[in-house]
Amino acid sequence: MRIAGRATRTLWTHADGTVEILDQTRLPHEVATVRLESAAAACHAIRSMQVRGAPLIGATAAYGLCLALRADPSDAALARAATELAATRPTAVNLRWALERLSAHVAPLPPPARVAAAYACAAALCDEEVERCRAIGEHGLPLLARSARRPVQVLTHCNAGWLATVDWGTALAPVYRAHAAGVPVHVWVGETRPRNQGLLTAWELGEEGVPYTLIADNAAGHLLARGQVDLCLVGTDRTTARGDVANKIGTYLVALAARAAGVPFYVAAPGPSIDWSLDDGRAIPIEERDADEVRVLHGRAADGRPASLALAPAGTPVANPAFDVTPAELVTAFVTERGVAAPAELGRLFAETT
Amino acid sequence: MRIAGRATRTLWTHADGTVEILDQTRLPHEVATVRLESAAAACHAIRSMQVRGAPLIGATAAYGLCLALRADPSDAALARAATELAATRPTAVNLRWALERLSAHVAPLPPPARVAAAYACAAALCDEEVERCRAIGEHGLPLLARSARRPVQVLTHCNAGWLATVDWGTALAPVYRAHAAGVPVHVWVGETRPRNQGLLTAWELGEEGVPYTLIADNAAGHLLARGQVDLCLVGTDRTTARGDVANKIGTYLVALAARAAGVPFYVAAPGPSIDWSLDDGRAIPIEERDADEVRVLHGRAADGRPASLALAPAGTPVANPAFDVTPAELVTAFVTERGVAAPAELGRLFAETT
Repeated sequence: MRIAGRATRTLWTHADGTVEILDQTRLPHEVATVRLESAAAACHAIRSMQVRGAPLIGATAAYGLCLALRADPSDAALARAATELAATRPTAVNLRWALERLSAHVAPLPPPARVAAAYACAAALCDEEVERCRAIGEHGLPLLARSARRPVQVLTHCNAGWLATVDWGTALAPVYRAHAAGVPVHVWVGETRPRNQGLLTAWELGEEGVPYTLIADNAAGHLLARGQVDLCLVGTDRTTARGDVANKIGTYLVALAARAAGVPFYVAAPGPSIDWSLDDGRAIPIEERDADEVRVLHGRAADGRPASLALAPAGTPVANPAFDVTPAELVTAFVTERGVAAPAELGRLFAETT
Repeated sequence: MRIAGRATRTLWTHADGTVEILDQTRLPHEVATVRLESAAAACHAIRSMQVRGAPLIGATAAYGLCLALRADPSDAALARAATELAATRPTAVNLRWALERLSAHVAPLPPPARVAAAYACAAALCDEEVERCRAIGEHGLPLLARSARRPVQVLTHCNAGWLATVDWGTALAPVYRAHAAGVPVHVWVGETRPRNQGLLTAWELGEEGVPYTLIADNAAGHLLARGQVDLCLVGTDRTTARGDVANKIGTYLVALAARAAGVPFYVAAPGPSIDWSLDDGRAIPIEERDADEVRVLHGRAADGRPASLALAPAGTPVANPAFDVTPAELVTAFVTERGVAAPAELGRLFAETT
């Protein structure tokens, strides 16, 4: 990933053990970072969506445990921080996966040895995350390259780019890979109400020099019906063993419209986003977020200063489910670090060597 | 319709021939009116969406011709105003219908007699529009009343209430009729990006005391899939002879999700919204509106003053189609002033007595 032409990641550590993150609540208007000095700060960063995207939530949670152990390496402190971090957001399964992995790694060690081991484990987890995303880019490249149209027309929803991961992204990794390989790509970017993560995608694509067009989410069906999309490519917060996909609210509508138009609908899913303990996507907990996310918008005033705007009066009744579930039958294939697989083949793909 | 408990219409005339309208660009935050004194002002009101909704666009265009004739009752002035008004917006067919009807009525008359005849014709057109909407309410009532759940759960998109018509509304007429009949109703209101006409619907329902919940458009599929909707009810800007429905962008996605959930999808369509000259909905011209409708939002600042907010930087590439087409096969039935009819029966319903 590049910001203003400079290679970076979405989070990095300092010699004192603190963790610096990009504050995504200030993007795309301003590139600002936040320094996390405690597990509580990591909880706040996840809950307030300073960091978001299932893989990045997992990475931040892992470092949240590191920060907790840095303050107190006891069993009790480890358990308490893991519980608090797990409670920040309910849908993305990477969160639980990262916490369990790091906890299992450090719990058998004597407390004084835990801090260094935790940081090493979190760093390895991030490096593996980056490698998984890079591999998703490789495996996804042929899906774009084989399209007859140039530029190939990709439609995405939400942000499953490098801002949702440590680097590369999931759904956008094949886009960046294709762009680097000289395959002309154009991306239709749904703004992704209510939190407008599509604006993050637009900004990210702009930083990478990939052509894109921002649309209201409502326009996705029209573009698909009119033959203006070659493939859909989205991320996932949690995919079940049979291939039901929880992802940002509105993804299911895109999948329905893709099916109606005969356009392939691909889900970029790194292994840690797959919940092998669940089959039926309807069992995935769906986060209900604050009404003000729908009612109040944040952006820039005409003078460029940060500003908020009420679209509806306070007290307006609002429902705000943050995710929906796309059933496996609407998914053409998953793009994973191990290759591309139809929903029915997903289990076999991951069973082969684990 | 009632605003602050007082019965009114969305437009009315004054003794001097000027026409007063509710300025819908200032709703829901402020109830303000605009006085139209010329055909140019009527054109501006339609183009800028001070008035919107297919039936109200038709009524305003009819009065736009009256205002043109009031200034100059010549053939040339009549033709020029009709051309200018017809060019304001391309999708809603009521616009053309109203202009043709009023032009045909006054053109044979000697110029001095045209002004009074035009106002009488426009007034009759408005009264008939109100009567059509009232009848749609009556015919739609049983669709709501027969639902087993109380309150019956209706999902709508955009605003097809009294703000989109002269009074009553189209899609909301059955809701108001049911509410008046003591049938408990709850309405899920999609915010309808990019112009957020759902906020008009929320405000309207609030004025009428009908319970509602505002949602991001993206949430419609989730609510339908989870069994939280009994029926969908939307309006139309233009419906073809075979029943393809052009309506606000995003309507097609709702129709797809309703079909997938086995929930009926009804379209409230007054006769003047049906374009008998077209069969294939793909032939309906789809208006492409300004990029800033997606990029910039208008609402209220924290201090209550009108404010605008940029969600994305100027120059962000945007596509902004204002309508999409729902194919007839996704429409359970049309609710018209003549009764309820499946798409295949629509022609017969209107052929009976015309």
